Amino acid sequence: MKLPNSLEALVEALRCLPGVGPKSAQRMAYHLLQHDPEGARQLGRALDGALSHLRHCTRCNNFAEQEVCERCLSPKRDASQLCIVEMPVDLNTMEQTHAYNGLYYVLMGRLSPLDGLGPRELAFERLLARAADGVVAEVILATNFTNEGEATAHYLSEMLQPKGVRVSRIARGVPVGGELEFTDAATVAQALIERRRYD
Amino acid sequence: MKLPNSLEALVEALRCLPGVGPKSAQRMAYHLLQHDPEGARQLGRALDGALSHLRHCTRCNNFAEQEVCERCLSPKRDASQLCIVEMPVDLNTMEQTHAYNGLYYVLMGRLSPLDGLGPRELAFERLLARAADGVVAEVILATNFTNEGEATAHYLSEMLQPKGVRVSRIARGVPVGGELEFTDAATVAQALIERRRYD
Repeated sequence: MKLPNSLEALVEALRCLPGVGPKSAQRMAYHLLQHDPEGARQLGRALDGALSHLRHCTRCNNFAEQEVCERCLSPKRDASQLCIVEMPVDLNTMEQTHAYNGLYYVLMGRLSPLDGLGPRELAFERLLARAADGVVAEVILATNFTNEGEATAHYLSEMLQPKGVRVSRIARGVPVGGELEFTDAATVAQALIERRRYD
Repeated sequence: MKLPNSLEALVEALRCLPGVGPKSAQRMAYHLLQHDPEGARQLGRALDGALSHLRHCTRCNNFAEQEVCERCLSPKRDASQLCIVEMPVDLNTMEQTHAYNGLYYVLMGRLSPLDGLGPRELAFERLLARAADGVVAEVILATNFTNEGEATAHYLSEMLQPKGVRVSRIARGVPVGGELEFTDAATVAQALIERRRYD
């Protein structure tokens, strides 16, 4: 005797969440139905809202509701510095250090040939155009210190240096093999201060 | 600089899921938007479908799409036995033993005065009416062996015995303090076989 169709569909759909297996999907479904139908309604609406309102900022590539996000439009940010991060969570981590006031570019990934992610998939030519706008004087590479993040930084430095822009890498104060998202703000701030120029 | 409104709303809404804190809610949101928008759409639809199609079976109180669920309508099930469980997951665990062919009643909780859950909130009078339908000859109490589950079983046995129905409790083969959901099928089957009559 199987679950009712709509319940089965909900359990199945919840498994699209990262780290959610069949058992926790079932627990989540029952929890929502029994204890929090209002939360479930809200989640449905929020998914709908996010899917229909969010797009990528044409300047920094982060998620935004406008064509150009607030941060990229802000006159308070130093437009001569461009910090490149892999994911939005990394940008958030950088912001929490309060040690950086420039702008960002979010790759939405990292070079990863095994996953089929190359310079084309990550739209490196868009980044190149962004970095060569004549205002950006320094590009700060803040990809993770994983193998893929390091390879991405190396590739980007090779790509950007011929364009006459100064390219630096945040210092390896971030533990080797570690990821920005899980590093405390003080360490990330230190790594930012000790960034070294590619030469 | 905060997150875009619709992204913030999605992160907030994901926190209604059990065991999801602010950090994993953010990771889930980014994952859905970046890597699985189709899954997000599906999840939205599934939530909507489940909320609008599911209700409680009027016979067993489990989630169902019809007024009376398939299991309660099945002529293959032994209507003289009624097994009482706390939650739908417990019912699923019982079914996995293949050691029981009677019907069920799902309490959707257990007596828990601290959480404001008493006989009224759990609608014990509906259960009483169900058990006194003249067909049920034996009620098998399969609530968990936690303090609250034991208290619930005790309360129900006191309530049901005067109605002339045989009341039994699955054997304490399930580890004391343990919960059905996390017990292997063989142990649950053994506990079912060794159920003892309240006297």
